[in-house]
Amino acid sequence: MAKKPLILVTNDDGITAPGIRALISVAKEIGDVVVVAPDSPQSGMGHAITINSTLHLDHVHIDDDSKNEYSCSGTPADCVKLAINEILDRKPDICISGINHGSNSSINVIYSGTMSAAIEAGIEGIPAIGFSLLDYNYNADFTAAKKVAKTVLKNALKHGIPNDIVLNVNIPNISKKDIKGIKVCRQARANWKEEFDKRQTPHGKDYYWLTGKFVNLDKGKDTDEWALENGYVSVVPVQFDLTAHHSIQQLNTWDFND
Amino acid sequence: MAKKPLILVTNDDGITAPGIRALISVAKEIGDVVVVAPDSPQSGMGHAITINSTLHLDHVHIDDDSKNEYSCSGTPADCVKLAINEILDRKPDICISGINHGSNSSINVIYSGTMSAAIEAGIEGIPAIGFSLLDYNYNADFTAAKKVAKTVLKNALKHGIPNDIVLNVNIPNISKKDIKGIKVCRQARANWKEEFDKRQTPHGKDYYWLTGKFVNLDKGKDTDEWALENGYVSVVPVQFDLTAHHSIQQLNTWDFND
Repeated sequence: MAKKPLILVTNDDGITAPGIRALISVAKEIGDVVVVAPDSPQSGMGHAITINSTLHLDHVHIDDDSKNEYSCSGTPADCVKLAINEILDRKPDICISGINHGSNSSINVIYSGTMSAAIEAGIEGIPAIGFSLLDYNYNADFTAAKKVAKTVLKNALKHGIPNDIVLNVNIPNISKKDIKGIKVCRQARANWKEEFDKRQTPHGKDYYWLTGKFVNLDKGKDTDEWALENGYVSVVPVQFDLTAHHSIQQLNTWDFND
Repeated sequence: MAKKPLILVTNDDGITAPGIRALISVAKEIGDVVVVAPDSPQSGMGHAITINSTLHLDHVHIDDDSKNEYSCSGTPADCVKLAINEILDRKPDICISGINHGSNSSINVIYSGTMSAAIEAGIEGIPAIGFSLLDYNYNADFTAAKKVAKTVLKNALKHGIPNDIVLNVNIPNISKKDIKGIKVCRQARANWKEEFDKRQTPHGKDYYWLTGKFVNLDKGKDTDEWALENGYVSVVPVQFDLTAHHSIQQLNTWDFND
């Protein structure tokens, strides 16, 4: 019998979130599973790492059949670093992150703790996938998302993810039968139009809550936003070489000697 | 007389750090300056944003001639969002971030609060540059870095930075006369080899400090690492479309229907 793949599972919503419990159940159908995830929600943490404070790691028992699960006081990227360096005795075959409660499509990839965990694994040479369901509810229905995660995970293990690439998988918030398929896409050009909610403390000092509206600036039918709006799962290959190679020529016309 | 450019200055080491004071002095030679920067160090914050807690903003007075300076309780990305939406009455002509105390070359761009501020500005359609000096000391000598920052800033205002690109400028820790020039580069392929420092609390519980060693895996002479090691300033054009367009074809061979 072939050796089972070793699957590292993490997320940014915290180790008890229903999304990661769903992803763990998928991973257990396919391989040996180790979970290292934040002990509290870390949404919007981007690729933060903990360098000015200490990190704590606890062996935890959440489900009846959970043995290899660790909660970590740090960020999603910290979880991956600790898993690889302190917990696992060999390199995992794949790292999966999520299932996030909410979208990480388009520009949200930049702010996403879910994707930062996957990217951290990618940087360390481990194939990695982040999964997100477009439903922010704690009690979201992960039935369709689980099926998608299993399909993508099996493909990734079979075909291998290209080097230095991680996958950003977003799943529309519709029922399994309404999902039209899985599309490989590019990241749509979009941004957030911030609307700060300005309030006053009981002591009369101003403070702000960050809120905003997502604005899709990109009508391309090859984008993740188009796919999701039209009933498809989006798979965007994400790279961590951020060099805009195409603009190097233009910058070489600048005069740096004045 | 031509209208002076409006320059937004931020950083991740905090508003009182010598690096941002150096950058402010450069900016003031060229334009009208508004500073919105974190009230405390935010190194390693990546592209974190504050969504689960409140944000505070204070009009502060640090130098004798500082009028338009605000400290913010949030991350570097929060600072840029607040500056654009709550403080400035028009879009700045450019946003500059730094001068960071320490390197943001190669893969460090991913973890960098300095660069996340620049990238946030870029996402909002504002030309942006992050500056970093390869010296982690609080009392680093910013003389050479200031000259470099002025040269790059003037070029950016004159030529314009390509759309959807921000610049990652790293300055070697050598004297002004020893700097050989400014090179446009690509990001070197590198990672950190973590070495967690495992300790025990006075109560006998394990905890960790994240430490590590930077490992350059890339011998290319067109990389930022090569430039910096050889006495050059590196300028890497950075994009926030993370799509690995070159791998889409390969992923389209996967079978998502099983």
